[in-house]
Amino acid sequence: MARIVMKFGGTSVADLDRICNVARHVKREVEAGHQVAVVVSAMAGKTNELVDWVRKMPLVAGASASFYDAREYDAIVASGEQVTSGLLAVALQSMGVDARSWQGWQIPVRTDNAHGAARIETIESATLLERLAMNQVAVVAGFQGIGPDNRIATLGRGGSDTSAVALAAAIGADRCDIYTDVDGVYTTDPRIEPAARRLARVSFEEMLEMASLGAKVLQVRSVEMAMVHNVRTFVRSSFDAPDAPGMDDFDNPPGTLICSEDEIVEQETVTGIAYAKDEAQISLRRLADRPGISAAIFGPMADTGINVDMIVQNISSDGQFTDMTFTVPTGDVDKALAALEANKDAIGYDTVQSETGLVKVSVIGIGMRSHAGVAATAFKALADKSINIRAITTSEIKISILIDGPYAELAVRTLHGVYGLDKR
Amino acid sequence: MARIVMKFGGTSVADLDRICNVARHVKREVEAGHQVAVVVSAMAGKTNELVDWVRKMPLVAGASASFYDAREYDAIVASGEQVTSGLLAVALQSMGVDARSWQGWQIPVRTDNAHGAARIETIESATLLERLAMNQVAVVAGFQGIGPDNRIATLGRGGSDTSAVALAAAIGADRCDIYTDVDGVYTTDPRIEPAARRLARVSFEEMLEMASLGAKVLQVRSVEMAMVHNVRTFVRSSFDAPDAPGMDDFDNPPGTLICSEDEIVEQETVTGIAYAKDEAQISLRRLADRPGISAAIFGPMADTGINVDMIVQNISSDGQFTDMTFTVPTGDVDKALAALEANKDAIGYDTVQSETGLVKVSVIGIGMRSHAGVAATAFKALADKSINIRAITTSEIKISILIDGPYAELAVRTLHGVYGLDKR
Repeated sequence: MARIVMKFGGTSVADLDRICNVARHVKREVEAGHQVAVVVSAMAGKTNELVDWVRKMPLVAGASASFYDAREYDAIVASGEQVTSGLLAVALQSMGVDARSWQGWQIPVRTDNAHGAARIETIESATLLERLAMNQVAVVAGFQGIGPDNRIATLGRGGSDTSAVALAAAIGADRCDIYTDVDGVYTTDPRIEPAARRLARVSFEEMLEMASLGAKVLQVRSVEMAMVHNVRTFVRSSFDAPDAPGMDDFDNPPGTLICSEDEIVEQETVTGIAYAKDEAQISLRRLADRPGISAAIFGPMADTGINVDMIVQNISSDGQFTDMTFTVPTGDVDKALAALEANKDAIGYDTVQSETGLVKVSVIGIGMRSHAGVAATAFKALADKSINIRAITTSEIKISILIDGPYAELAVRTLHGVYGLDKR
Repeated sequence: MARIVMKFGGTSVADLDRICNVARHVKREVEAGHQVAVVVSAMAGKTNELVDWVRKMPLVAGASASFYDAREYDAIVASGEQVTSGLLAVALQSMGVDARSWQGWQIPVRTDNAHGAARIETIESATLLERLAMNQVAVVAGFQGIGPDNRIATLGRGGSDTSAVALAAAIGADRCDIYTDVDGVYTTDPRIEPAARRLARVSFEEMLEMASLGAKVLQVRSVEMAMVHNVRTFVRSSFDAPDAPGMDDFDNPPGTLICSEDEIVEQETVTGIAYAKDEAQISLRRLADRPGISAAIFGPMADTGINVDMIVQNISSDGQFTDMTFTVPTGDVDKALAALEANKDAIGYDTVQSETGLVKVSVIGIGMRSHAGVAATAFKALADKSINIRAITTSEIKISILIDGPYAELAVRTLHGVYGLDKR
């Protein structure tokens, strides 16, 4: 017997037929003897419709701009999950499975007061645990809780993943199964490299690097929470047949388990190749090489809401002047250049150069820590294909390389091959 | 300064434009210096969509019949009012009117445990009154409350009228304005008698008789509640321009005030003519004239869920046998006849006759109590038109007459004229 949380997104509950398919997945786990809590999103498209209404309403009412009360936004938008949680409970009951729906305010899932993008503070699990022990399935409306003002608070878009992981932590679940429209985490994007393989296991740290680099399987915030609370998170496809093998079929699990590295017995040196398109590079030439120069540059960037990614500073050759290179999303380049121009005197630089449409390719692997030469392998492989490297940053488990956009696919395939990711 | 409740039905909040029109009605009352609580229904069609989903779900899930958990039904269906209450609050805020939405569980509106058709037990008004005193408009989701099980409970279809009247009673409102798709209560159906006039005032008792007879302006239950708590209820059209004269324009109010008879200074003998179509008459011949015979007949009717309306028992001519006539909706005739056949021995009758497609025409007026000859006037007027009377029942303020269906319009117009309802 295990206690598990199962999470289904909007595509999985888009209509009555799909909700019944979800119910069959749940029934399978119940019949396997598990205690089950389910977290559901709103029907696909429903949240967008509700959000559109809230945004349009001030304009229809004659206001000159779309300002609205985030607490009303929350009350309106949370109704989508209220509907699907109730419908799934009805479907389960109709299949002979004891179940009830729980709204965020009923459990309660307590959040802070940041309506529209609230953070979960505590989940009172005592009553839920009693019901689970009676083999009643808890169908929980995702994406929502209740704030200190006794009003519904939503967690921001994609928040149902976070709801599921937080619930799993609160009830001490053995596993949190995230059903989504992909069947797991791959060594790289299969659309670029058809030889990409699904990973059976990936560590929280690796997943964080992959998610923030655009793998988009799981919200970054939910992976962070899973790591902090050590919630084993299993990503699988909701389009699998409900009688497909379960997670317990360890030889060939139908998805990817995201877990602590202790659980990954044979660590590969490199686990995957990620990429992020539409990066832009900004270089400042002949900066005074003095303390505080970084703050002078990146303070204005943060104030303008620009998300700076790679930062590379060269050692100055003459002890007086240095160069600084960093990347921002291409869409933010104009704002960034304007901010630099406005602060030119405070920063003190000679010229600024920028280049858009670049790509960041990243080599990720927890085994990198104990293996030398991983970076050198990448550089040599790219050089063999005449791919020019514009900038490099590294962390303990990641090497990121900035290259020209047109070489993105070639670089991903080259790196995927050179680390043998398509052979195992 | 007055404290008022304003209630808007589904047609009035069917889209963003109409919700803004509602907001303008509310703003007018706020600017007149009143404290305002608003009760809203779900967008027209939304409740039906949600109800359909709940009903279909068990069948989609493979169950052989549509049995579902009324508590889940409530959670799902109540989401419709959650959306409109939030949207109206946003619209009001956008017009510079302080407002917030309240779900049933937030106030809370406490109900009994009869999910799907719950009754309001108490409304905790203290917080609401504080906010009203601060000139904040309370936008309340109608049709819902919270049961003793801490789960959403709905009041049954049309329950938003009841929500509004109950709220008005709880906060001691001076008036409850019901905005609907008609502009008041008429002396009779204007589609049958174009000379029908809108009544400026009608007593609770008269309204109850009219509502249960099919006038359909207000739910019977909300009128009962208004009568018990003496909530002055003003029925008007939501399609009036928001700058139309208010209720306080007493010479020509834009709707009908339903109030206690003390407030109706000049009571007319007859206030209105109502009718109910598709009645069926069932007559039992040669019943034993013994105690308990009525229970033997109507017990099985009640058990089968048949709503018996008029009941007429003739005095037996010979002291041994009697006849019993009663009416049921035409759609229930077959069920009723089957129930009588099944209980023939227990009841003990000779023959049963039935006739469908009949009409019940009713003359209603609180002044009838003190005026003799009202019934005689009706009988003579119908006889003059050669309309055959099949059965008659009377109460203190009502005379109901069963006639053949084809004479319905003629009878309504004749009675409307004979009591001078189109002349005043």
